[in-house]
Amino acid sequence: MTFAGRRRQGGPEPGAALGRTHWVFSAGFAPSQSTGSEPEFTSRNTLCLLNTGDDDACLQLMIYYQDQEPVGPFEVTVPARWVLHQRINDLIDPQAVLLDAPYGMVLSSDLPVVAQLYYLDSRGGHLAVSHLNPLPLD
Amino acid sequence: MTFAGRRRQGGPEPGAALGRTHWVFSAGFAPSQSTGSEPEFTSRNTLCLLNTGDDDACLQLMIYYQDQEPVGPFEVTVPARWVLHQRINDLIDPQAVLLDAPYGMVLSSDLPVVAQLYYLDSRGGHLAVSHLNPLPLD
Amino acid sequence: MTFAGRRRQGGPEPGAALGRTHWVFSAGFAPSQSTGSEPEFTSRNTLCLLNTGDDDACLQLMIYYQDQEPVGPFEVTVPARWVLHQRINDLIDPQAVLLDAPYGMVLSSDLPVVAQLYYLDSRGGHLAVSHLNPLPLD
Amino acid sequence: MTFAGRRRQGGPEPGAALGRTHWVFSAGFAPSQSTGSEPEFTSRNTLCLLNTGDDDACLQLMIYYQDQEPVGPFEVTVPARWVLHQRINDLIDPQAVLLDAPYGMVLSSDLPVVAQLYYLDSRGGHLAVSHLNPLPLD
Repeated sequence: MTFAGRRRQGGPEPGAALGRTHWVFSAGFAPSQSTGSEPEFTSRNTLCLLNTGDDDACLQLMIYYQDQEPVGPFEVTVPARWVLHQRINDLIDPQAVLLDAPYGMVLSSDLPVVAQLYYLDSRGGHLAVSHLNPLPLD
Repeated sequence: MTFAGRRRQGGPEPGAALGRTHWVFSAGFAPSQSTGSEPEFTSRNTLCLLNTGDDDACLQLMIYYQDQEPVGPFEVTVPARWVLHQRINDLIDPQAVLLDAPYGMVLSSDLPVVAQLYYLDSRGGHLAVSHLNPLPLD
Repeated sequence: MTFAGRRRQGGPEPGAALGRTHWVFSAGFAPSQSTGSEPEFTSRNTLCLLNTGDDDACLQLMIYYQDQEPVGPFEVTVPARWVLHQRINDLIDPQAVLLDAPYGMVLSSDLPVVAQLYYLDSRGGHLAVSHLNPLPLD
Repeated sequence: MTFAGRRRQGGPEPGAALGRTHWVFSAGFAPSQSTGSEPEFTSRNTLCLLNTGDDDACLQLMIYYQDQEPVGPFEVTVPARWVLHQRINDLIDPQAVLLDAPYGMVLSSDLPVVAQLYYLDSRGGHLAVSHLNPLPLD
């Protein structure tokens, strides 16, 4: 099902890809330590992607670190009309993203997507959660 | 009481509907598990809506998932000059929003509203909270 | 001390009031319950205001509820070149802001300010914190 | 490695400095108390900076308080193509940033950067985390 039946005057076209093509954030930090049962309580940084369009979106991610050159591009595909909650720890090609290290990311997509960050930190023996919006560049 | 008495030069008209008509977010995830007393400590995703205008706002919500087609529209009305804190779990028509599943949402309103997200997660035996702004599209 | 000495090309004028004059948010909810020592662990919603300008900023706040008409204006002054972290619970004129109730706010200032929200919730026997940006209207 | 190989049509130039040159936030508050092992569980406010460009970025920070004149500028350099996660507590020249005190910040950079805030609060005997976007001024 696409946008049919819910379009409002001045609103997005049915099947339109909503959002932006370039996003960037600086506050990445994925702890290596966790407590509690896996995988739901595993400390993580999750890149939450939504592709509302009728075509798959191809993304390229560059990772920036505090004391070394950037690494990438990592490639991620978000299927048409789906969300994808991508754990940063699962990005391993061309190189696993470093844990316990400050990082930033530049995301470039061939089609507009919506990108948000979800943080879960269970190091302290319980759950701490946070959300963050990356900066849209276009 | 409306905006009378507080209007500033260049500010909104009394009774104006402030905000945007289209909002979108990608970071939805409503845990099915909770600890502590209900309903205040029930894990939830809450869509916080404000309609500052003098007319009711009619909203249509589309929900996007990670491995199935989108579902909707869900319909929500925000009365004139009121807020509405809508728990996502309470959206059941045309189909209950899935728990323990990544989701995204596109919100379309016939009048401008302000939309924000509130997350409460009590899975870990205590309270974790977060807030998130959806992306305005217009 | 004002901006003298740190101005960059294309940057703000020394003593300029930075930010916006109208802000709005929908996700207000101030729990009445707390645990731990007061006042640092008292559950709260705090409106964090910064006035970088050389003149005091006069703000008017309207509070919107889920099942009653809006209340206000509340008046707050942010002195020149100061921040003010205003606990919502301390807004009592013309009427104390309701606790345990969803609310929204429209903030109107005669001069640009920066407004952000800080949430602290100690109901669960420990500390949960969150931050949120209101929507700028101008 | 720079942006080579990942540039998309309409996207940023290789080696471009992405982001903004002026950022401001009002919700600063760095607790002096912590629990748990240091330094990972030390309560903190961290300014997360990303410089995607091929030249070092020089930043000047002004700190605003609730009951005294602003202090600064503090100077911070973000090396080319690196992130820098700067703990506010480590800003000591011209004067250590006050703990347990509300503060705001104006950040001025000679080149565009991305700035975000990370809050960790371990006062309550465990970990609470939050993220916040400063307001871009340009």
